[in-house]
Amino acid sequence: MYNSVTKGPSSFQGSSRMKSCITNAVSNFFFEYETPRQVLVRSKRVGVVCRLIQLGVLAYIIGWVFIYEKGYQSTDTAVSSVFTKMKGVGYTNVNGEERIWDEADYVFPVQGDSSFVVMTNYIITKEQKIGKCPELHPSYVSAPLPPTPTPPHSAHTHTPTTGKMTGRCLMDSKTCEVLAWCPVEDDSNIPDPALLISAENYTLFIKNSVNFPLYKVRRSNLVEGINMQYIKSCLYDPEKDPLCPIFRLGDLVKMSGYNFSTIAREGGAIGIVIDWTCNLDYAESECCPTYTFHGLYGDAGEKDKARASVGYNFRYTQHYMEDSMEKRNLLKVFGIRFDIIVRSEARKFDIIPTLMAIGSGVGIFGVVSSALYILKSKAYKNLMEPTLC
Amino acid sequence: MYNSVTKGPSSFQGSSRMKSCITNAVSNFFFEYETPRQVLVRSKRVGVVCRLIQLGVLAYIIGWVFIYEKGYQSTDTAVSSVFTKMKGVGYTNVNGEERIWDEADYVFPVQGDSSFVVMTNYIITKEQKIGKCPELHPSYVSAPLPPTPTPPHSAHTHTPTTGKMTGRCLMDSKTCEVLAWCPVEDDSNIPDPALLISAENYTLFIKNSVNFPLYKVRRSNLVEGINMQYIKSCLYDPEKDPLCPIFRLGDLVKMSGYNFSTIAREGGAIGIVIDWTCNLDYAESECCPTYTFHGLYGDAGEKDKARASVGYNFRYTQHYMEDSMEKRNLLKVFGIRFDIIVRSEARKFDIIPTLMAIGSGVGIFGVVSSALYILKSKAYKNLMEPTLC
Amino acid sequence: MYNSVTKGPSSFQGSSRMKSCITNAVSNFFFEYETPRQVLVRSKRVGVVCRLIQLGVLAYIIGWVFIYEKGYQSTDTAVSSVFTKMKGVGYTNVNGEERIWDEADYVFPVQGDSSFVVMTNYIITKEQKIGKCPELHPSYVSAPLPPTPTPPHSAHTHTPTTGKMTGRCLMDSKTCEVLAWCPVEDDSNIPDPALLISAENYTLFIKNSVNFPLYKVRRSNLVEGINMQYIKSCLYDPEKDPLCPIFRLGDLVKMSGYNFSTIAREGGAIGIVIDWTCNLDYAESECCPTYTFHGLYGDAGEKDKARASVGYNFRYTQHYMEDSMEKRNLLKVFGIRFDIIVRSEARKFDIIPTLMAIGSGVGIFGVVSSALYILKSKAYKNLMEPTLC
Repeated sequence: MYNSVTKGPSSFQGSSRMKSCITNAVSNFFFEYETPRQVLVRSKRVGVVCRLIQLGVLAYIIGWVFIYEKGYQSTDTAVSSVFTKMKGVGYTNVNGEERIWDEADYVFPVQGDSSFVVMTNYIITKEQKIGKCPELHPSYVSAPLPPTPTPPHSAHTHTPTTGKMTGRCLMDSKTCEVLAWCPVEDDSNIPDPALLISAENYTLFIKNSVNFPLYKVRRSNLVEGINMQYIKSCLYDPEKDPLCPIFRLGDLVKMSGYNFSTIAREGGAIGIVIDWTCNLDYAESECCPTYTFHGLYGDAGEKDKARASVGYNFRYTQHYMEDSMEKRNLLKVFGIRFDIIVRSEARKFDIIPTLMAIGSGVGIFGVVSSALYILKSKAYKNLMEPTLC
Repeated sequence: MYNSVTKGPSSFQGSSRMKSCITNAVSNFFFEYETPRQVLVRSKRVGVVCRLIQLGVLAYIIGWVFIYEKGYQSTDTAVSSVFTKMKGVGYTNVNGEERIWDEADYVFPVQGDSSFVVMTNYIITKEQKIGKCPELHPSYVSAPLPPTPTPPHSAHTHTPTTGKMTGRCLMDSKTCEVLAWCPVEDDSNIPDPALLISAENYTLFIKNSVNFPLYKVRRSNLVEGINMQYIKSCLYDPEKDPLCPIFRLGDLVKMSGYNFSTIAREGGAIGIVIDWTCNLDYAESECCPTYTFHGLYGDAGEKDKARASVGYNFRYTQHYMEDSMEKRNLLKVFGIRFDIIVRSEARKFDIIPTLMAIGSGVGIFGVVSSALYILKSKAYKNLMEPTLC
Repeated sequence: MYNSVTKGPSSFQGSSRMKSCITNAVSNFFFEYETPRQVLVRSKRVGVVCRLIQLGVLAYIIGWVFIYEKGYQSTDTAVSSVFTKMKGVGYTNVNGEERIWDEADYVFPVQGDSSFVVMTNYIITKEQKIGKCPELHPSYVSAPLPPTPTPPHSAHTHTPTTGKMTGRCLMDSKTCEVLAWCPVEDDSNIPDPALLISAENYTLFIKNSVNFPLYKVRRSNLVEGINMQYIKSCLYDPEKDPLCPIFRLGDLVKMSGYNFSTIAREGGAIGIVIDWTCNLDYAESECCPTYTFHGLYGDAGEKDKARASVGYNFRYTQHYMEDSMEKRNLLKVFGIRFDIIVRSEARKFDIIPTLMAIGSGVGIFGVVSSALYILKSKAYKNLMEPTLC
């Protein structure tokens, strides 16, 4: 053995001294190699410890990195696009004036975006025209203490909320005069129940296509088997019809933990998350969306009430000419805002992360071993040499 | 040599036994180190195998991780914003009534979002007012079997599509009476060819700025050399003008694999992907966008037809007062929806991923070696000790 | 020592030859292990080098990977939704005609999207109706050389910008006649100062909720302590009120490096980035947003001017019936476009990346050592064997 050691280097140096021929150097490079001398130690305790460590690392690499964390796969997120379409007709009868609301009138914006508002309640101020009138609507003034109109939106204002001060203040109505669209809006009390409570029965149709560029995979939420016949009849249900792309508004509200009559009155916001978590090592057709629904701004409406901002509303006008004078109808719209959010993660086997995982796993093995080094070198002073697994 | 082994530890223990002076311990820590004893084995087969393994790992680290996967770079995605502007004028002549459509009339929404619809066809129902009329337009009833209006959007409805049942059913028109915006829309046949087929010549101007916060790099799709002079004249062409931000609608439709007359008639959806894949190890000015176009919902219109949902349309109203009565014009708009999607990935050298890559590469080396361990220990029973590369 | 070496394998082979009983094989597997023979070399230079390398790697792993790069944490990005609400009233007095603008009139779109435009200036063309008139407004023709209307938007057009050529050309007005909405718009000179310069005092209220699905954490920009009372009074200030969700338009413009009077006149685009960079190893309540503001399209307005596209404007129409004829008011709207962009990265301790980091760190150690291999084997020819740290 010892000879082989001495012979090795000496012959190496000899040969290189004798003739510095490249071919020979190459053959040396190829046909010689070094290896540490191994000692076979027989020891119950150390042996068991060593094996357990090795098994532990092995278990970690296989179990955690591979099975749990899927470390052998690469991931990609999708390019996605969403279209929506509401369906349903609303009917209101405000002091004898009947009115029909169809999707062209109650959806903002009309063109089917992924984020839109469905009107469920409104305060209309008709035939406003530019003029001079008291800043606050009489209903506020007469009230013992005037309620701030729909916090917090009028809260953060440092200019009059409705118009431009003319400087004159009216004793009789206890407010100052403004140049504004008159008469000014009176939003002191919101219609209860909501005027368009029937919105509960509207249906929402969602079209969503995702595209995983890395894997060249394109999917639509109208997956295999969802044909026109099915869509005609189906309605989304978490258990029975989890893939039906048609949702009843009432169900959406319930599933996101709201009470419809409340949200319809003051307005609110609901997120519809379409989740595409796909393992493309399986068949493409198994890559299907799952829909989840959650009220935005924290789950408990209570917590929010205590907080700053409740409800969802905005103002909207229809301008028209009458007697060659511009007039407008002002609608304060309370509605449910839907944000359709697409989350996507596709995974597929890839050699690089696999090797990375293995590599680091082995590295960890080294750490653990050397960690036990001191321990053992202490434990085995009787041995001539400290030992490694 | 053998002595050095015995001397080593003993002297170590001796010195430490003799005086437990820290400085000495430190000097020991610094001036002594352990190393495995190396054996030089001469063996063609094993030597070659070992060297090949080593070369393989080396090739893997350099070739794959570094050159192919660019493992030495960190990546960042951009914060992006997109503005759009349509240009062009449409002209329609429906039974003698001439009309001009400019971008304020045919783009929804008007303010230049990254997702918008260009009207290419429409069914107008003029002077609707609230009233009582048969639910279905005569044209349906007279027809042998009434075609469902533009599936699937009317498909998923459980309330009457147009209004509120009054309860009375009219024998003469074979339908029931509803309170609705009368007269009800008749969308049984879509104008063919599309009324605004001239949309083919509209141009779309896209402004897109991206911002890679990690590298503090901001780029616009109006890159160096794209000045006002160029924009005045240019038109996007994949080969000749790949950086011109102005697109002819007809070209967009063709490049996304659609037939213009078809998509103009029924509507459709097109995704414009602006791809910013930049290697910031080179000059910033080489970080330029590439535009790709694809029809949304799978490429083959055929497959979709079989599927649930075809075309793209929505309803839109213009309200006005006449004789102090509210009326509206209802437009069923067929159009091309454009979704401008920005994908971005910038890469730049970073020390961390570099070291990670090297580290794991080395780890893998360990795996491979030990994998060959049993093999070799079997193959070289004649050797006194099993060997490692 | 030598015996132990020979005894090891032989006994192993012997036992396995004698009885191939599994239990015995297992006991061997557990109670025997191999270890390289260690040599203790005493050498100042090599020892120091070795230790320094080890310390260096240790420093790298601890200092860089862990402290600097936080390699021990996993990351997640948020699902986010943004609502906005403008507040404030504008007043214009154009040749004696007073007019009031409220949020329903100057925000596009009205429903409070994350991307919206605030009108600050406009050119109105009243009572347009379909008819025949000269393509260019007289003001262009009379001018010595007709300025192109607001580049570059009219630049990229290959059809007449306003209507359909009738074929007749009018000598008197030196332009050709078109069928168009007449009279045609005259946007040759933009009102200066901006008509709605008072927009500087409008306030913007931002509601933003983020949701880190991986860690099941949901946050809102109305963080703890931001209650209705605070919102009533507060106004965002980078130092004093960095968490107040209410922003003065003038401040927004200043903070993004623009001059208000300029941007109000020609329009512009501002990005509001809400940054949620949270270390969830700390309390949730410490996960708060930070707001940053930057003008889109490069910082220097100068650079842009030289470039292709300046300002931000779009056209908007109000249709109405008069004498049973359809008319429209055309508004060319100049405004500030706000894009609210949410960036989010939450980090939390995770065992996997920790082990990955350690693992690769160890791997690197291997690299460095073997890199010094040749050096040392040269340096210590006198040693019988080349050495490793």
